[in-house]
Amino acid sequence: MESTTLEPTARESAHSEPVLYLLPSLLDAEWGGDHIGSRVREILAQLEYLVVESEREARRMIRRMLPGVDLNRYTLVLLNEHQREPRYGDFLEPMHRGHSMGLMSDAGLPVLADPGSGLVLEAHRQGWKVEPLSGPSSLMLAWMASGLNGQHMEFHGYLPIQASDRIRQLREMEQRSQRTHQTQVWIETPYRNDALLESALRCLKPNTLLCVACEITGGPKEWIKTRRVDEWVEAIQRGEGPSLHKRPCVFLLQCP
Amino acid sequence: MESTTLEPTARESAHSEPVLYLLPSLLDAEWGGDHIGSRVREILAQLEYLVVESEREARRMIRRMLPGVDLNRYTLVLLNEHQREPRYGDFLEPMHRGHSMGLMSDAGLPVLADPGSGLVLEAHRQGWKVEPLSGPSSLMLAWMASGLNGQHMEFHGYLPIQASDRIRQLREMEQRSQRTHQTQVWIETPYRNDALLESALRCLKPNTLLCVACEITGGPKEWIKTRRVDEWVEAIQRGEGPSLHKRPCVFLLQCP
Repeated sequence: MESTTLEPTARESAHSEPVLYLLPSLLDAEWGGDHIGSRVREILAQLEYLVVESEREARRMIRRMLPGVDLNRYTLVLLNEHQREPRYGDFLEPMHRGHSMGLMSDAGLPVLADPGSGLVLEAHRQGWKVEPLSGPSSLMLAWMASGLNGQHMEFHGYLPIQASDRIRQLREMEQRSQRTHQTQVWIETPYRNDALLESALRCLKPNTLLCVACEITGGPKEWIKTRRVDEWVEAIQRGEGPSLHKRPCVFLLQCP
Repeated sequence: MESTTLEPTARESAHSEPVLYLLPSLLDAEWGGDHIGSRVREILAQLEYLVVESEREARRMIRRMLPGVDLNRYTLVLLNEHQREPRYGDFLEPMHRGHSMGLMSDAGLPVLADPGSGLVLEAHRQGWKVEPLSGPSSLMLAWMASGLNGQHMEFHGYLPIQASDRIRQLREMEQRSQRTHQTQVWIETPYRNDALLESALRCLKPNTLLCVACEITGGPKEWIKTRRVDEWVEAIQRGEGPSLHKRPCVFLLQCP
């Protein structure tokens, strides 16, 4: 198939197999545009079909990554946690017509603590090439910056909402780390962060290492601190505790 | 303290608190220089003191990220797995004199499946700011591109060398995933990859999903495939198995 147009996607789809690209988005839409390599922008400029977590955030992110781009070139299809049993086969239909596609979350890397794994698995089933593009992942950056075990880690996503279940899970994570010294990682809905830190400091052992990594964007609001549980308690008593309310955080613990 | 020189590090150290930067390096020194945002280059251009995994690789990587830079500006200090009980306090000595420092691995992100967590923890103990900079992480990219569970993951680093121990751990990981559906992730020394894949296909259940993510650099040699164990066996019988020998790989499994 020959293509006579210079339109990038047509060129791309004419000369190569379609690819499902996993595109990072920025962690803070207001800051830090230079954390993404030029390859992400190149690919985004070529694509027409994007599966996104929300249309509004996707448009905002595209505008930030490609200032001046005509947003009308993109066909956005929604994939988020509100959909029960999404028909992934239908999502990938443009690939059968020769178009590469992109998958993008509201913030950070798609799939990780975000929707999308079902779509990627379907792409593997259908035999398409899947290409992940690197970008900021708050989980990975928090793990690296925590100073906790970098050789063995368990990520739990969100903890249970119910207080007693949450405390049980905090203790279980601590016990697992005690046996294996692995780093245990979790996230929380931002408005529950302060309550979570309070529970953690009440139920974990004094010498357990706890890291709170807050607003990891490389921007001025970023705040990452690792202390022993007893040191956290003392810091808070001295009035040096952080306010985590509504600030996206990653929490990590490790038994020494 | 006033600084009259325009030399970037002097400016930086005069006007702000020293920071321990965690710097990504490229996954493939021969390809893919556009996977790192400009902020990494800006920081690297300002630093003088780097803690590195190997001097040769660090010099190569700096030259690639900052072509034309005078390598003599950098003081490189080695931190790798051959050192027993490194004195992390000594490593951080330049920070007490007002200098920011960088920590860098041979490939990918420092600390993660690499040395460095002890240094970062010491920096937290001493109260320094730690700033992680995003870049390619083969572990994260493999997880995202596998199509396996993105909400719950366990990373094991290297599996045991002994064949029987390795098989026991493969089975344990499968059992853990069967209970929780979490994604289990590990790596292997590249020359043992083919033997590892063979063991895995022999001891895992037919319907377990296995992903092999090979040379994740975004380059032409990248190869990522997720199949059920029985599909892997059939593909290999048809001669469509991969050759993984000496190619850096990440392995992932998940029970459906």
